[in-house]
Amino acid sequence: MDGSFTMIGLGRMGAGLTRRLMAAGIEVNVFDVQSEAVDALAKDGASPLSGLEAITDLPAPRTVWVMLPAGRITEDTIRQLGEMLDPGDCVIDGGNTYYKDDVRRAGELAKRSIDYVDVGVSGGVWGLREGFSLMIGGNEAQVERLDPVFAALAPGEDAAPRTEGRKAEDDRPDRGYAYCGRTGSGHFVKMVHNGIEYGLMQAYAEGFDVLRNASSSLRADDLCYDLDLAGIAEVWRRGSVIRSWLLDLNANALNADQHLESYSGHVSDSGEARWTLEAAVEEEVPVPTIAAALFARFESRRQSSFGNKLLSAMRHQFGGHIEGGGEAGPSVPAEPRD
Amino acid sequence: MDGSFTMIGLGRMGAGLTRRLMAAGIEVNVFDVQSEAVDALAKDGASPLSGLEAITDLPAPRTVWVMLPAGRITEDTIRQLGEMLDPGDCVIDGGNTYYKDDVRRAGELAKRSIDYVDVGVSGGVWGLREGFSLMIGGNEAQVERLDPVFAALAPGEDAAPRTEGRKAEDDRPDRGYAYCGRTGSGHFVKMVHNGIEYGLMQAYAEGFDVLRNASSSLRADDLCYDLDLAGIAEVWRRGSVIRSWLLDLNANALNADQHLESYSGHVSDSGEARWTLEAAVEEEVPVPTIAAALFARFESRRQSSFGNKLLSAMRHQFGGHIEGGGEAGPSVPAEPRD
Amino acid sequence: MDGSFTMIGLGRMGAGLTRRLMAAGIEVNVFDVQSEAVDALAKDGASPLSGLEAITDLPAPRTVWVMLPAGRITEDTIRQLGEMLDPGDCVIDGGNTYYKDDVRRAGELAKRSIDYVDVGVSGGVWGLREGFSLMIGGNEAQVERLDPVFAALAPGEDAAPRTEGRKAEDDRPDRGYAYCGRTGSGHFVKMVHNGIEYGLMQAYAEGFDVLRNASSSLRADDLCYDLDLAGIAEVWRRGSVIRSWLLDLNANALNADQHLESYSGHVSDSGEARWTLEAAVEEEVPVPTIAAALFARFESRRQSSFGNKLLSAMRHQFGGHIEGGGEAGPSVPAEPRD
Amino acid sequence: MDGSFTMIGLGRMGAGLTRRLMAAGIEVNVFDVQSEAVDALAKDGASPLSGLEAITDLPAPRTVWVMLPAGRITEDTIRQLGEMLDPGDCVIDGGNTYYKDDVRRAGELAKRSIDYVDVGVSGGVWGLREGFSLMIGGNEAQVERLDPVFAALAPGEDAAPRTEGRKAEDDRPDRGYAYCGRTGSGHFVKMVHNGIEYGLMQAYAEGFDVLRNASSSLRADDLCYDLDLAGIAEVWRRGSVIRSWLLDLNANALNADQHLESYSGHVSDSGEARWTLEAAVEEEVPVPTIAAALFARFESRRQSSFGNKLLSAMRHQFGGHIEGGGEAGPSVPAEPRD
Repeated sequence: MDGSFTMIGLGRMGAGLTRRLMAAGIEVNVFDVQSEAVDALAKDGASPLSGLEAITDLPAPRTVWVMLPAGRITEDTIRQLGEMLDPGDCVIDGGNTYYKDDVRRAGELAKRSIDYVDVGVSGGVWGLREGFSLMIGGNEAQVERLDPVFAALAPGEDAAPRTEGRKAEDDRPDRGYAYCGRTGSGHFVKMVHNGIEYGLMQAYAEGFDVLRNASSSLRADDLCYDLDLAGIAEVWRRGSVIRSWLLDLNANALNADQHLESYSGHVSDSGEARWTLEAAVEEEVPVPTIAAALFARFESRRQSSFGNKLLSAMRHQFGGHIEGGGEAGPSVPAEPRD
Repeated sequence: MDGSFTMIGLGRMGAGLTRRLMAAGIEVNVFDVQSEAVDALAKDGASPLSGLEAITDLPAPRTVWVMLPAGRITEDTIRQLGEMLDPGDCVIDGGNTYYKDDVRRAGELAKRSIDYVDVGVSGGVWGLREGFSLMIGGNEAQVERLDPVFAALAPGEDAAPRTEGRKAEDDRPDRGYAYCGRTGSGHFVKMVHNGIEYGLMQAYAEGFDVLRNASSSLRADDLCYDLDLAGIAEVWRRGSVIRSWLLDLNANALNADQHLESYSGHVSDSGEARWTLEAAVEEEVPVPTIAAALFARFESRRQSSFGNKLLSAMRHQFGGHIEGGGEAGPSVPAEPRD
Repeated sequence: MDGSFTMIGLGRMGAGLTRRLMAAGIEVNVFDVQSEAVDALAKDGASPLSGLEAITDLPAPRTVWVMLPAGRITEDTIRQLGEMLDPGDCVIDGGNTYYKDDVRRAGELAKRSIDYVDVGVSGGVWGLREGFSLMIGGNEAQVERLDPVFAALAPGEDAAPRTEGRKAEDDRPDRGYAYCGRTGSGHFVKMVHNGIEYGLMQAYAEGFDVLRNASSSLRADDLCYDLDLAGIAEVWRRGSVIRSWLLDLNANALNADQHLESYSGHVSDSGEARWTLEAAVEEEVPVPTIAAALFARFESRRQSSFGNKLLSAMRHQFGGHIEGGGEAGPSVPAEPRD
Repeated sequence: MDGSFTMIGLGRMGAGLTRRLMAAGIEVNVFDVQSEAVDALAKDGASPLSGLEAITDLPAPRTVWVMLPAGRITEDTIRQLGEMLDPGDCVIDGGNTYYKDDVRRAGELAKRSIDYVDVGVSGGVWGLREGFSLMIGGNEAQVERLDPVFAALAPGEDAAPRTEGRKAEDDRPDRGYAYCGRTGSGHFVKMVHNGIEYGLMQAYAEGFDVLRNASSSLRADDLCYDLDLAGIAEVWRRGSVIRSWLLDLNANALNADQHLESYSGHVSDSGEARWTLEAAVEEEVPVPTIAAALFARFESRRQSSFGNKLLSAMRHQFGGHIEGGGEAGPSVPAEPRD
């Protein structure tokens, strides 16, 4: 690849990408505000930059891959790059950026003839070893030019058996990366990927919750089961319809501790499921499981919501029910009521 | 009405029904295991029974209205009545009984030529004054015979403006009670009534929750609203599309305390929404809001569910996210991730 | 009230507002691109304007109530008004405007010292007779000045019994209108009102659907009920927990035709439930019934969705199930499968 | 294994199980009412039985695996077996049986000292080659005795990488089969497996639906994407968080026809998701995605539901909206309304 390649942002994902590129023989300049992150990669062969502005000293065309948390810091960094780069240079945003932001940014950079490529990256902390799944949008000529970069990062064809009937001429997706289309499409596809991910995770969570509560005192005596969840996950990993990489993670967690006691049960969410919901509404596509998965995470982080208190307040009035106490549990109605 | 009429179960609902019947000049025999409940009504003119078996001394045909908590105690009482009553007598179950139990019980009583009538009763603690909404199933001849009882309990036609085009010959529903059909249909209709009730309550709860959180720090500064929820409820009560009796209850509660601090936020559920869900599945009818309302109540009573912990465990593995701490709140992603 | 008052947009809602104001003795200038709408009101005493620009000839301060379909036409009209009005004049947007648009518009008008008031109006076609529920945001001094207008439009205190404990000094909400706060808050509250409305409507729709399908061949013979839905709605209107104005509408519709054959089953949605969902996500408040109600409307308008086809395609592969045919219906599995 | 082994029911699943057992050197007697199914397996080495009663001529202890559609035919067959088998014989139900039926049946068979084992089988039409995932409940001594059968059917350890920390002494799950506990637990676990499956499938369906509609005219021009769904599925299969066997099936289907035109969009459901929902309600565990997935299938098979017509009927009354026509599509509101 001609010119220079720089990675900005050397957290887990940025570092993983960098190492995988270096392993493929690609020279990578690196920068991060945390100097230890820079040092760690420099020790292994990356070329450290003293500051963002040092990019201007690198050979053109300059390709700069920004791998920072979505939001303000990415926004600021790309704006700065827009001011210091030259026509023909290329900015790649590999973060979980809102695709509508891509369109705006690409428009601004285009005024200075700087190209923009948006890349959705999946693979998490395992990506360094197994390769990253890449969904790419934006300037098509740049994507062509950068093919060696993407090919090096992707898992490669052996990562999964070839689907019957797939043709050789369209083989980038079969190696784990794809050009999805105009600006924003890479992040759009990654956004939906994450929306699906939320739904999948929630389905497993609900299922294991039902299994675990099969021993609940709410069940009839002869229908109580005390199930080995870790074992069940292992069985399902082999030959079942629901085997998946996420199921492997469930198996890991349940095998380490069937009670998952080190987890609080508060589950964060990043923006992608929210944006998927927004896109679905714009398209008038019903997405009940993705919405339910997002709401379950909201709920996991709340305490006794106002809405629930209002439910109790209504019940108190029409039925005389008292729910002021702190004890949760099924209600045993004292008499008929609404 | 010929014969004798007895009310068994003198809690809030049973006492309210009794008083409304007495106010209409109907003689009521009363029984409850709690003697104070019996005494209170006897003082106001009801005839106290010394025990369940005293019913056999009353004139036939004996009508016995059972108004007990749904479940075991109702089941036992009706079984006992089945053993002591005579052919031509009639048992009314006015509780929130599962309609499939009605069918079974009616079949057993029929073997001894005892009739069975199932009545779904709505109106809560307000019913004594405003009248009770009655949904009636079972032996049609008995329902005809008992018309004065039902007419006395129901709110009467003035409770709502007559719907345009309603015909005079079908005026029981217009007075607030209706014969719904064969055994179980009264409780079936009441069950669906309660299923709808759950959905309505949840919709109000969600809406007020969104209003209350309009002042949340998660919102942009110029879009933060500090709203007077009690006042808004009052506005909606007058002229709006969503005015309802449940909204009146919301207004009461919010006016008494905008923060609802005396409520824990744990919301009980009785069986009807569960049975509505079951019936819907049997009929293959989607009921997403009723299901969501039921699940919201389950959720309100749980703490850090196992399923949520599993979500965290998966996230920890693929993204390195740590959610073991006790702090809830939105996630600020440290870097791109899945 | 000083100055002049003009209503722009004389459709069902705009005409209803105008007539109710005139009935209260308020002089109203009217304009609409459809001259028949103008003529109809002029005949009854309104002062017709020959064009939008004629507003500038009216006495100041000029109050202009815009009652047009939300979106482009409202946007354009308010922009034009902003150009022709003078400092101290006031624009009221009574449409179903997105509250974030209010904030933007108010900011633009403020540059020319023109005030902006956003009013959410509920009451539909019944509002003329019963009064309109008004949720008001924006410039507080103008809202004070316009009190006679709002008081005339609102249903008045008698529209509902006074809630116990409500104090006399805060009696606007008790008459059916309220100042909600800064710009956008009126439309924000109206938006949530409509979100709740979607949830309520869907809950009734699900319940009646379960009742109607109680006669389905999918049910056991002795649990089949052939229910009189119109009668049940009448019973519920009297004394039940779920009585409401929307239930009255259900009763009307079911009484006119129990089969509702004149309706296609395709249900439109306007923007408010979508925006409520958006606001809920921004606030991290779960709104499962409002989301479900919105998705049900989307679904009602789709035919054989792509997602459903994909479900069939998956089932075909893992179980050999063929779902290519046109016949809907429950599956009778030919043998065990996943 | 001592005694004799018989497979009853030679459809896709029964035939697959039989062939896999024969391939492992286990002698299998076979019976089906369809003689061609018997002949096909007899030709490949199975021993055909002339009728069900011929089982009594086989050596004891007789193990009879029933692999028939869940419901009446399984029920009848097991009742007949219960009458003809001897103490010490064993009936295995490998179908998708409701776990509460297992408990009842096992109790009846126990009266004659016949053992009962319930086995949930996953793997579909691919199981013959890849092995079946087996979830086993019931008589533990019989499960021990039948270990060679289960081991032969299961995929074996190589089907998935061993989870870190799994211990050698508990290695059946690691080979793809597990003893889950008392009677019914095998089918209970399989039931939840299918409930999860419904949620996973729906999540993928929703996600691809959002991708496909990214080219919808409802979207802003510069945010319209015309996406290659088959290619995206390929990318996701390699390195992404959502890779799974079900995703492989999506890839197959989309690669064969991106428009899935051969599918009607009507999706059947068998009983397991319904029972999972029932179990969740009994345990008071919220399962919003599983419920949503089930409801989506119900919806896919309906036409213009009664509930939707009722929504239109309400809208017509409060807003004057006409939705009687046949045209679906987003609503363009003619003016403000509720």
